[in-house]
Amino acid sequence: MAPAHKAQILVEAFPYIRKWHGATVVVKYGGSTRSGDVELKNTLQDIVLMKFVGMRPVVVHGGGKDITRLTEKLGIHSRFVDGLRVTDIPTMEVVEMVLGGKINKELVSTIQQLGGQAVGLSGKDGGMLEATRVKSKTGKDIGYVGKVSKVNTSLLDILDKEQFIPVIAPLGLGKDGKTYNVNADEAAGAIAGALKAEKLVFLTDVPGICKKKEDPKSLCSTIKIKEVVPLIKKGVISGGMIPKVQACLHALKAGVHKTHIIDGTQPHALLLEIFTPEGIGTELIP
Amino acid sequence: MAPAHKAQILVEAFPYIRKWHGATVVVKYGGSTRSGDVELKNTLQDIVLMKFVGMRPVVVHGGGKDITRLTEKLGIHSRFVDGLRVTDIPTMEVVEMVLGGKINKELVSTIQQLGGQAVGLSGKDGGMLEATRVKSKTGKDIGYVGKVSKVNTSLLDILDKEQFIPVIAPLGLGKDGKTYNVNADEAAGAIAGALKAEKLVFLTDVPGICKKKEDPKSLCSTIKIKEVVPLIKKGVISGGMIPKVQACLHALKAGVHKTHIIDGTQPHALLLEIFTPEGIGTELIP
Amino acid sequence: MAPAHKAQILVEAFPYIRKWHGATVVVKYGGSTRSGDVELKNTLQDIVLMKFVGMRPVVVHGGGKDITRLTEKLGIHSRFVDGLRVTDIPTMEVVEMVLGGKINKELVSTIQQLGGQAVGLSGKDGGMLEATRVKSKTGKDIGYVGKVSKVNTSLLDILDKEQFIPVIAPLGLGKDGKTYNVNADEAAGAIAGALKAEKLVFLTDVPGICKKKEDPKSLCSTIKIKEVVPLIKKGVISGGMIPKVQACLHALKAGVHKTHIIDGTQPHALLLEIFTPEGIGTELIP
Amino acid sequence: MAPAHKAQILVEAFPYIRKWHGATVVVKYGGSTRSGDVELKNTLQDIVLMKFVGMRPVVVHGGGKDITRLTEKLGIHSRFVDGLRVTDIPTMEVVEMVLGGKINKELVSTIQQLGGQAVGLSGKDGGMLEATRVKSKTGKDIGYVGKVSKVNTSLLDILDKEQFIPVIAPLGLGKDGKTYNVNADEAAGAIAGALKAEKLVFLTDVPGICKKKEDPKSLCSTIKIKEVVPLIKKGVISGGMIPKVQACLHALKAGVHKTHIIDGTQPHALLLEIFTPEGIGTELIP
Amino acid sequence: MAPAHKAQILVEAFPYIRKWHGATVVVKYGGSTRSGDVELKNTLQDIVLMKFVGMRPVVVHGGGKDITRLTEKLGIHSRFVDGLRVTDIPTMEVVEMVLGGKINKELVSTIQQLGGQAVGLSGKDGGMLEATRVKSKTGKDIGYVGKVSKVNTSLLDILDKEQFIPVIAPLGLGKDGKTYNVNADEAAGAIAGALKAEKLVFLTDVPGICKKKEDPKSLCSTIKIKEVVPLIKKGVISGGMIPKVQACLHALKAGVHKTHIIDGTQPHALLLEIFTPEGIGTELIP
Amino acid sequence: MAPAHKAQILVEAFPYIRKWHGATVVVKYGGSTRSGDVELKNTLQDIVLMKFVGMRPVVVHGGGKDITRLTEKLGIHSRFVDGLRVTDIPTMEVVEMVLGGKINKELVSTIQQLGGQAVGLSGKDGGMLEATRVKSKTGKDIGYVGKVSKVNTSLLDILDKEQFIPVIAPLGLGKDGKTYNVNADEAAGAIAGALKAEKLVFLTDVPGICKKKEDPKSLCSTIKIKEVVPLIKKGVISGGMIPKVQACLHALKAGVHKTHIIDGTQPHALLLEIFTPEGIGTELIP
Repeated sequence: MAPAHKAQILVEAFPYIRKWHGATVVVKYGGSTRSGDVELKNTLQDIVLMKFVGMRPVVVHGGGKDITRLTEKLGIHSRFVDGLRVTDIPTMEVVEMVLGGKINKELVSTIQQLGGQAVGLSGKDGGMLEATRVKSKTGKDIGYVGKVSKVNTSLLDILDKEQFIPVIAPLGLGKDGKTYNVNADEAAGAIAGALKAEKLVFLTDVPGICKKKEDPKSLCSTIKIKEVVPLIKKGVISGGMIPKVQACLHALKAGVHKTHIIDGTQPHALLLEIFTPEGIGTELIP
Repeated sequence: MAPAHKAQILVEAFPYIRKWHGATVVVKYGGSTRSGDVELKNTLQDIVLMKFVGMRPVVVHGGGKDITRLTEKLGIHSRFVDGLRVTDIPTMEVVEMVLGGKINKELVSTIQQLGGQAVGLSGKDGGMLEATRVKSKTGKDIGYVGKVSKVNTSLLDILDKEQFIPVIAPLGLGKDGKTYNVNADEAAGAIAGALKAEKLVFLTDVPGICKKKEDPKSLCSTIKIKEVVPLIKKGVISGGMIPKVQACLHALKAGVHKTHIIDGTQPHALLLEIFTPEGIGTELIP
Repeated sequence: MAPAHKAQILVEAFPYIRKWHGATVVVKYGGSTRSGDVELKNTLQDIVLMKFVGMRPVVVHGGGKDITRLTEKLGIHSRFVDGLRVTDIPTMEVVEMVLGGKINKELVSTIQQLGGQAVGLSGKDGGMLEATRVKSKTGKDIGYVGKVSKVNTSLLDILDKEQFIPVIAPLGLGKDGKTYNVNADEAAGAIAGALKAEKLVFLTDVPGICKKKEDPKSLCSTIKIKEVVPLIKKGVISGGMIPKVQACLHALKAGVHKTHIIDGTQPHALLLEIFTPEGIGTELIP
Repeated sequence: MAPAHKAQILVEAFPYIRKWHGATVVVKYGGSTRSGDVELKNTLQDIVLMKFVGMRPVVVHGGGKDITRLTEKLGIHSRFVDGLRVTDIPTMEVVEMVLGGKINKELVSTIQQLGGQAVGLSGKDGGMLEATRVKSKTGKDIGYVGKVSKVNTSLLDILDKEQFIPVIAPLGLGKDGKTYNVNADEAAGAIAGALKAEKLVFLTDVPGICKKKEDPKSLCSTIKIKEVVPLIKKGVISGGMIPKVQACLHALKAGVHKTHIIDGTQPHALLLEIFTPEGIGTELIP
Repeated sequence: MAPAHKAQILVEAFPYIRKWHGATVVVKYGGSTRSGDVELKNTLQDIVLMKFVGMRPVVVHGGGKDITRLTEKLGIHSRFVDGLRVTDIPTMEVVEMVLGGKINKELVSTIQQLGGQAVGLSGKDGGMLEATRVKSKTGKDIGYVGKVSKVNTSLLDILDKEQFIPVIAPLGLGKDGKTYNVNADEAAGAIAGALKAEKLVFLTDVPGICKKKEDPKSLCSTIKIKEVVPLIKKGVISGGMIPKVQACLHALKAGVHKTHIIDGTQPHALLLEIFTPEGIGTELIP
Repeated sequence: MAPAHKAQILVEAFPYIRKWHGATVVVKYGGSTRSGDVELKNTLQDIVLMKFVGMRPVVVHGGGKDITRLTEKLGIHSRFVDGLRVTDIPTMEVVEMVLGGKINKELVSTIQQLGGQAVGLSGKDGGMLEATRVKSKTGKDIGYVGKVSKVNTSLLDILDKEQFIPVIAPLGLGKDGKTYNVNADEAAGAIAGALKAEKLVFLTDVPGICKKKEDPKSLCSTIKIKEVVPLIKKGVISGGMIPKVQACLHALKAGVHKTHIIDGTQPHALLLEIFTPEGIGTELIP
């Protein structure tokens, strides 16, 4: 590439580096891509680079498929209540081992190899996520499934100020001393809100929010809170996108400046979103 | 109890509280006792109390039985080389899940409930334990088994200065980016040495080092390095006690002031060792 | 004593050590016991231990009998006005020498020998206690007798933050540049109030406040301000207890959290009051 | 440009941003280009961007042509001694007004407009450059021409730590209290040496050092000190390049890590040199 | 002089040294006296001594005559509009060179020789003085003449805290990126106001404000704001005194405690004003 | 006095104020003058002024006559051994009350009234002066007479850094827990040495050291250590001057820069010595 073009990109990017210096960005990384994947490596490299230039990225991850795989291997049969899978003790043990012992540590390993300094945590560490047991719609018990009732950021504050990148598995500790499985999108939103993050970014495998279902041309680059609710009602926003959108709403209310839903399968999506004037995906604002 | 007796114990204990203010104590907790056990609770309560009065406890744990149990459940067959079990990829996955996702997090939960602030870590976090692959005596590969080649304490230093109690699973990161299983006693010794800890304490299920095998009356309250080697040669010190003693020697060389092997099944053994003039178990000194 | 009992007492005491870390406790020590006495030594040892575990004890002392003894030896005849002894210039000189040069320095010596670091002060040092001349009930002059009109804690604040235990003789400096004798109980209350101390403790030679005069069984472990006034009116609280109770009231109004009147002749009364769940003596609360 | 290309450039540049965080870079900017010129603006923008991303740029400038122009306008006739122009009192007054009052302040204005915070200084401010009078080769007086005998960096250290970019006119203060004109290249080298700068960069109007005179294809990208001296002797390095090369040698001896001679007329030459793997111009190393 | 007299003067002066420790004093020094003059040297010595004893002097200077001299030499013809000289581009270039390159640097040289540490600045440095273009009374353009619209003290705050004495030329930077000539008295007042200075002192060549024109016996040692306006209306205060008085009013409103107009031709006028009980000149108070 | 003269004195004094900023000066004040005396007031005012301008004065006092007076009043008969008075228990009690309770507190009162902040201490406070029992020349016991064996300056360091002036009574604490009377000159020298003071000043009632006995014209303004010893041998230096000279020698060896013996009865002798170029009395240097 011609030097003049290179220079131009740096001239464009540097003011963003200044702008975001010291800014906290919570990144929700889905569990669908796996260690060894190029996409995961690209994403984690972006996060390491963000830390390099003085930002404070915080990673929250999920882990659906691996949990299912291990429960099956162990012959644990899932019970369902009101259409929801019940997280009983043996299942919860698997959830904790996979989220906290497998996926979390894989992300840590990869970040370390890319030159970053990662610390793998669960929401139980330092009492970060306090969880309350939730029930099914009809009020039936569905086991160790919780929602975040309180976020204690003191551990994150300390790591943040230093060279460390926190990587968080969405487990919460109940007042009853039990461990609860928390939705990763919700956890990311709650953490971003508590940290008063500059940004909350959801890395998904779709381009963002589209005004017409399955029509990529109708992608919204910016959408306001009040425009979102009708789209949910109409069913345009549905499925796994709903908890993401709700986490965005929650985070915006709690003081997060901007929330983003972007396509994590696009190489270096995070870097482009943050350091170029165009941005990508959908920006959800108040 | 009569107030005069109470007062006397406090009068005795308080100078120790002053003496150990700010002192780092690495505690190796074996994996044989389990969550819910009174002993574990007593031990962790002692650790929380140590933190309360200004000490800096660091916990390192093992986890043998749980690992065996899960590999069996998953039908993973162990291969043996030179009498050593080979830690292949599926086994290593189990090791990591059990140590990092199950036992580590159980200890964290319990400490949190007892009023402490715990942070569960593996040796991979923040690049804490760098590991090198070890071979069998005849030079054969035994898989992902490592020894500690370097300790990076920067993460512990930060947590230590704050209200947090680090709880560490003995996993190391190789320069090859792979995860290695490290002997927990060795990990504890290496960490104590790197932290220049005041004390390294092994909680075991025996009273300490006995000069005559299986004769509790021959318990040494203090033993010097040079007295230890003959006892190993004679077979008086044997089995699981050997890595503990070696970790003590390693830690003493690295600058740890005192090392202790005490009976963790005795209620509040840790507290009595540190805050009373009598002490318990065996103290291994240079 | 059995280790289990020892451990139990430490387990009980340690949370108090944490709770009171950094807390300021003003202790009024009466002048009736003397250097060399076991009681005094016990009390001062408790104060040294409090400092050891991170508290900030401040000692205020009186000195009645020694003053009388020296005035007699010097043949100074006391004049009385409205039943009050007049503190004329020669008497005041004796008061200052005994309080500031004898008792104060004896306490300092003893604390130093017990391993503490004491600094003997009078209320004149650093302008700590500003005093105003008081008159008899009928408005007649009674000499250099003052009441505290202002407390300047800057000197105490500095010593407190360091390793020093301030020991204070109740002398005040008037705006007229004269030295005034101040009631030690009142001085202790005023200092505790100005320091926003956690506790103000009066060490006396009675068990506390009794609801029935001279009936130790009627000892109140806790009493509220509003209950105190009737007891004074009825004469149940009388004599030397009155200035103590008034100093408690004054200190509570000024923001001291709790005030205590305890029996200083009981060994380690202070330690038991502060570090055991039972407490002793009477606690006077708002 | 395709997002992938953009991302790639950022991925390349970010590690440099981390590497140079907090690094001091002394930039010598020649006086040949002028305010309003695109080149000057590009260069100063690069300097502002360097500050944005945490570097500590220090600018030293010259000002030849403007000085000549004003002396002519004022009808000051130059005297020559041994072929050197004599800097008499009227000439020195012009030098100081042009360097300190005109060019220096123009650079300050432009940096301020580009969003930076500049502070225009002369070497007299804070006693930064102490100068000694120099003579002609035959030992004749040539007026107020000085060489740097001492650099006091305390003022620069302070500004550096804050948001300010120092812009320095090459004037020195003699021990005799007189002001001396100092060669700007020499001043830049001396300042870089005293600051133990990471880099010293000369912006010139040629591509760098060529091994064959006037043959741009013979441009050295890296050249060692020992290779330079022969090139000077052979006359390949000549004219205005000589003081630059000598300043580089001086700075390297004083502890500067790298020195560069680059073509300032190439857009954003500075940015490309520092933040891309290729670099441009000639790097002079020990 | 007799030691007793010396002692007496020190006894008088020392409380002022304590009183003014850390106090910011803005000194407006007129451009009428010149480098080499005894008066200038005396004044700058006083300023250096003020810094020695812990005060924070800030110098603002003018420069009228030198500017006129150089414009004449260069044959620049002044145009007049509504009786005001127009500051066109060539004139402004001269103004900047003389103020920023000549007078400012002369003051810096002299302070350095007297043992102080001076930093010569213009109002453009660090964006200190933001200026807005002013027009003639009839609204006609008079060129690059500005009034202060904003003061940014961050650069002064930094220098102030260190050993440096800022010396400021009254040039401002417009939002249009142009440089503006600002009245030095006004600049001094604005800077004093923004710094919340303790004092603003104008060094003039008259004894102060006289109630009767040209009658030194009618000198006011103290005058209130409300008394000043009638004196202006009556023409008693006129000419160059008017901008000084207005700058005083402005500064007092902005929070400066006291303003002074004193005779700078009297040796060590500044020292006597600040460190002796009598004071000299006129003190203008709210 | 003419303003020009005043200005001149300030111009002379201010560089000393700068020079001595932060300097520790230990002043030994004899007990011969008394509270209420003009001389004492002058001296203490000088000390307050020294603190005002940023110096760190430390006062050490004696108290001979008052002690004799009170022992006589109390009918304590002195015993003599080898010509030395024996300090038995009753005498020591008087010594401590007079030094610590009377004279020390009088100095504190006076300093407070003069606007300073004094803290009255004995050498026992904070373990400042550790004393060892001394015997008579023939090895006989002379009671509680000690010499300084160790100085702990931690208390002085703290007070020094703050606004407080320490006033010290020369009492020491033995390792045996007993209080010892220490020669005040010796105490002053030991404290100055331990503090690495800039100056140690003895205020006496003679003009300094004279080379011929009782001939004020032979006053030495400066004298070296090696010149002093012969003068002692010849008996020119004798009596109370000997411990002062010895304390000077001791202090110089310990790192004090200069020691002075001056006439404290001359008004403001201290101020003149420190802040004027002439100085007064005798300066004893290495």
